Amino acid sequence: MTPMTSVDRADGQEPLRVALLGCGVVGSQVARLITRQGDDLRARTGRAIQLVGIGVRDITKPREGIDPRLLTDDVHALVNRGDLDVVIEVIGGIEPARSLLLAAIDHGASVVTANKVLLAEDGETIFNAAERAGVDVYFEAAVAGAIPIVRPLRESLVGDEILAVMGIVNGTTNFILDKMVTEGARFEDVLAEAQRLGFAEADPTADVEGYDAAAKAAIIASLAFHTRVRGADVYREGITGITPEDIAVARELGCVVKLLAIARLTDDGRVSVRVHPAMIPERHPLASVPGAFNAVFIEAREAGQLMFLGPGAGGAPTASAVMGDLVMVARNRVRGVAAYGQSLYADREVAPMGETRTTYLLRLEVSDEPGVLAAIASVLAQHNVSVQTVKQTVERRDDPLDVHEESDAPHPTAWLSLMTHKTREADLRACLADLAQRDFVHGPVRMMRGEGF
Amino acid sequence: MTPMTSVDRADGQEPLRVALLGCGVVGSQVARLITRQGDDLRARTGRAIQLVGIGVRDITKPREGIDPRLLTDDVHALVNRGDLDVVIEVIGGIEPARSLLLAAIDHGASVVTANKVLLAEDGETIFNAAERAGVDVYFEAAVAGAIPIVRPLRESLVGDEILAVMGIVNGTTNFILDKMVTEGARFEDVLAEAQRLGFAEADPTADVEGYDAAAKAAIIASLAFHTRVRGADVYREGITGITPEDIAVARELGCVVKLLAIARLTDDGRVSVRVHPAMIPERHPLASVPGAFNAVFIEAREAGQLMFLGPGAGGAPTASAVMGDLVMVARNRVRGVAAYGQSLYADREVAPMGETRTTYLLRLEVSDEPGVLAAIASVLAQHNVSVQTVKQTVERRDDPLDVHEESDAPHPTAWLSLMTHKTREADLRACLADLAQRDFVHGPVRMMRGEGF
Repeated sequence: MTPMTSVDRADGQEPLRVALLGCGVVGSQVARLITRQGDDLRARTGRAIQLVGIGVRDITKPREGIDPRLLTDDVHALVNRGDLDVVIEVIGGIEPARSLLLAAIDHGASVVTANKVLLAEDGETIFNAAERAGVDVYFEAAVAGAIPIVRPLRESLVGDEILAVMGIVNGTTNFILDKMVTEGARFEDVLAEAQRLGFAEADPTADVEGYDAAAKAAIIASLAFHTRVRGADVYREGITGITPEDIAVARELGCVVKLLAIARLTDDGRVSVRVHPAMIPERHPLASVPGAFNAVFIEAREAGQLMFLGPGAGGAPTASAVMGDLVMVARNRVRGVAAYGQSLYADREVAPMGETRTTYLLRLEVSDEPGVLAAIASVLAQHNVSVQTVKQTVERRDDPLDVHEESDAPHPTAWLSLMTHKTREADLRACLADLAQRDFVHGPVRMMRGEGF
Repeated sequence: MTPMTSVDRADGQEPLRVALLGCGVVGSQVARLITRQGDDLRARTGRAIQLVGIGVRDITKPREGIDPRLLTDDVHALVNRGDLDVVIEVIGGIEPARSLLLAAIDHGASVVTANKVLLAEDGETIFNAAERAGVDVYFEAAVAGAIPIVRPLRESLVGDEILAVMGIVNGTTNFILDKMVTEGARFEDVLAEAQRLGFAEADPTADVEGYDAAAKAAIIASLAFHTRVRGADVYREGITGITPEDIAVARELGCVVKLLAIARLTDDGRVSVRVHPAMIPERHPLASVPGAFNAVFIEAREAGQLMFLGPGAGGAPTASAVMGDLVMVARNRVRGVAAYGQSLYADREVAPMGETRTTYLLRLEVSDEPGVLAAIASVLAQHNVSVQTVKQTVERRDDPLDVHEESDAPHPTAWLSLMTHKTREADLRACLADLAQRDFVHGPVRMMRGEGF
């Protein structure tokens, strides 16, 4: 792309040709906006934007407000037209999205994508191809829907040193946990309700098992730490094991339970990236993020603490992020330039989960006998687990009316809640395994991580 | 700047030459960061960044961590060196900042500035000069310190239609109002405390009278609505008249009082821009913004509601924003490109304050007699003011121990709190003037606007 071409293009009357891949809830809104906002798009980019084709699986499906003549099920022919300026991809998944984007890039088109899975798994291939072809890859919609987070990390904070990013980046799980907190309901029941309301997919695995959040965490970590982080590098636990009891105990401690995506610079300069449920104090800005909202909390050395809040999904909010990228890519195109590419120079190591240091809440049922607390304290100390607070609660039983009798309970038991100081995850794991062997510990030990204290 | 030059520069070993104008709390931190983060800056921009001079008023003042050989009090000579790539301006005010920046731009330097006053008053001159010279003007630090707000408005949301921006953009006034709420203290006392603590200037006018917030509101409105808005276009009221009583009454209604900068698209396509204290509901995201923090709440047609929160001032946070801009400008410089300039195509009219439609809380002392409420309702109706709620409270007196006696109060009075539906400001003003004439209204009528209901 030479400057002469750039001048020609800026002056020319030829519109920018855009192809859209995918026409579901996000894609159809993007298509409608490109039509509806035609005058503004022209004024904001310096050129008219023409939607030349929409690749879909089924061209016979009725789509409100979409010109059916734009639809095609030959998506490969669409990206191989050779005259495209921009390809917008909202299909999701690895293939055929990757092949389609690579074909588009080879033909000189810039790319706007919302595809977190592809970017987390194999973004490198896309970014490298774009760099070679001198075209743009923009992906604000891939993380936290309409909330500007890619651009703030990539540009606004690029002169600072980011220490940690902690996000609620999956609306479905936040909706479920929120309901469990406010209604004391069980996970299975709230999930079923969320599915009825359309807040959860028929197959909810990607959301409730944390895969979606893990892909976003990988993208966030890559941007924040100038380091390639893949989805597979992210430690991941979902929310399927969270019980109403976990949530009640957290509340007693002045905390709420959230599924967090965490990317943190470790003391030794590595990167720790993980997705798991965590207790956070009620006064933490992330604690009050409601329902299907997303929020991202950032700690940077100079900027201090920042938070971004907004709708994390949905057709219109995600389309807003896509349209912002489209305008930026179009402006570059009209002016014959491409944006600065990926910044991965720091090439930091991803620390294994065992090296994570955080606080833990342990709950265990123990024999209510003299010396047991001392014995537990000794086990913890052997594993370098130092305790912040201990709370002994009344014996809990499945049947609250069950009266405690000698015959039923030859060894009376008590419940202990232990909150640790910051502990190495591997030490904590070893401690849990050790406790499980002890006679005075009854049943499994419950563990939940704490963040934001 | 031709592409050949761009390639030469990208390949060359010559560092980018940066001059800094101003070395106070922000400038000195910027200077330290340019030195401390040298390796990262080079890796993030593709070129070393060299600080070649710092323009100050007094070169003899000791400045920790700053090489005294960089200091000069001949700022005009500094910007006229002719070999500068970037000039960072953190002096503030109109002159000499404007002349210095124009000289720098004429010599081909890009500009990073935190100068809200200059941009709000005469940004046009700076932006036009930069456009002619093909250089960048970046100004993330001019609004809300470290919170990325310029870039989200300018880029992330540029494909959406922004309907309203509502911000707490002045930390000093938020600190004072927060203290008045939590401690029930008087404005004068909290201001004096804020001055002792260094949260308020010796001359607090720019903050407490809303001039600082008005300049930021003008910049925000320009970006949000693609329209030139100047500081003088912004309706402005400060917080000096807010009483503990105002805050107590707001609290009774489940509200807090904040100084808001509001930029809103009106129904008829004009822009309404104003700074004034307002009651907002306690559950509104802006209500819980603490102390010296800033927050910006955005409503966009597609994105929905977004909020950005963070430290709005201070040396390190503001330096973070400056450094982000420096990296972005340096990347452009290395690659021989300039960013897309101002987008002012929409050229919307700024609506006069009288055309604003919002809700109002009125408090008035009235004769406690039959028929008075009906008479007031009639006055309101004559001025198209429609009432949402009315509350009559016990008579208030300066001395709470003062016993109500016939001789003291031949006409007993009551206090009315009226919350209106959305009303045109001009109608409300006329209504207030009318009420002031009525015999049954005693003393002045207190008015406070309500937002975010």
